[in-house]
Amino acid sequence: MRVIYNEQMAELAALLGEMAGLAGSAMERATQALLQADLHLAEQVISESDRIGEMNTLAEEKAFALLALQAPVAGDLRQVVSTIQIVADVNRMGALALHVAKVARRRHPNHALPEAVNGYFAEMGRVAVAMATAAKDVLETRDPERAAELSGDDDAMDDLHRHLFTLLMDREWKHGVAAAVDVTLLGRYYERFADHAVEIGRRVVFLVTGVLPADPDAEIEHI
Amino acid sequence: MRVIYNEQMAELAALLGEMAGLAGSAMERATQALLQADLHLAEQVISESDRIGEMNTLAEEKAFALLALQAPVAGDLRQVVSTIQIVADVNRMGALALHVAKVARRRHPNHALPEAVNGYFAEMGRVAVAMATAAKDVLETRDPERAAELSGDDDAMDDLHRHLFTLLMDREWKHGVAAAVDVTLLGRYYERFADHAVEIGRRVVFLVTGVLPADPDAEIEHI
Repeated sequence: MRVIYNEQMAELAALLGEMAGLAGSAMERATQALLQADLHLAEQVISESDRIGEMNTLAEEKAFALLALQAPVAGDLRQVVSTIQIVADVNRMGALALHVAKVARRRHPNHALPEAVNGYFAEMGRVAVAMATAAKDVLETRDPERAAELSGDDDAMDDLHRHLFTLLMDREWKHGVAAAVDVTLLGRYYERFADHAVEIGRRVVFLVTGVLPADPDAEIEHI
Repeated sequence: MRVIYNEQMAELAALLGEMAGLAGSAMERATQALLQADLHLAEQVISESDRIGEMNTLAEEKAFALLALQAPVAGDLRQVVSTIQIVADVNRMGALALHVAKVARRRHPNHALPEAVNGYFAEMGRVAVAMATAAKDVLETRDPERAAELSGDDDAMDDLHRHLFTLLMDREWKHGVAAAVDVTLLGRYYERFADHAVEIGRRVVFLVTGVLPADPDAEIEHI
């Protein structure tokens, strides 16, 4: 039983890692699509988004089968339950990358973003992709220290997001309401993407140590 | 074992129902706080928000204990796993009500909303609270037909949200960028609140029937 459990759990961990990698790759291309008003890239992200959803279903089924057939206990049980919770976060990261790609497509051939905020989104995209890569790494290696660091990585995203809102709320904003609405939603998508990566980190710490780190209250207060 | 399982599962279902009820009550008061710039109500929602978080932890612990001590199989196992997934949705509904209350507090003594959109938010609040009440009901009764109807209830929210965005994107919007940013975020909080209620409905259908309804792609496309 133990050998089978270990094999199946390793498969499941690899699947989750792969999902996080796909979410990161989707966010990377969605960001490029957004910055360059690249319809082809946006369409690519949108058409590939089903893949993460399918893997989501597969991961849930595998976790369920593990519980049903192996009846794990103690630390093993904690691993499987944490995995079920992590699946939802990774899936949501994929959905948020999809949202970004859809905004890029909706505004094409125009740019969704005023040029003044391109730098913010390039940087938020960079941080988001790095966090997805870290989440993938953490899911595969189960390194609790690296997992705990995801919360610190998110500080950079929160700073960017806060600055972006300062800019939006400034009387000098010259790009109109429609652009402000797009920027507001897009900013939120990146922030939530990073929050889910932090949440994956917390769950991996729990899965390894049995102690769930405090919720960093990752969602920043807007201005 | 079976008797103990049934008792513990009933306790867990009651706890989830109570959480959904609290989330609905929080959203009701947060909406009032928003519409009336009522600081006292906003503070109340904010100070009580920890309660849902505590119940979230308790529900996760109870579900874990059920798996560990009762080792349920087949339909019973499906119930517990679904419960773990539902806990995350109910918890998130509480967080979104908290977000609304925080916006009301942040803008006090001003109103966060331009008067022109009050009607939309009164109605979105009404739909959100009704959906939380339905989710509570569905968690307690496990009625799969009522659970499936939550997806239809969400159509009203999607319509409201779509109209709200048409208004925001209109050149005639006269309330400035800062108000548009608040309205955008608030609209998203209500929409996501409703999405989580739909998700609870889907999970309850699965929990009872073993078949997960198709994802209604509940998140609407903005204009």
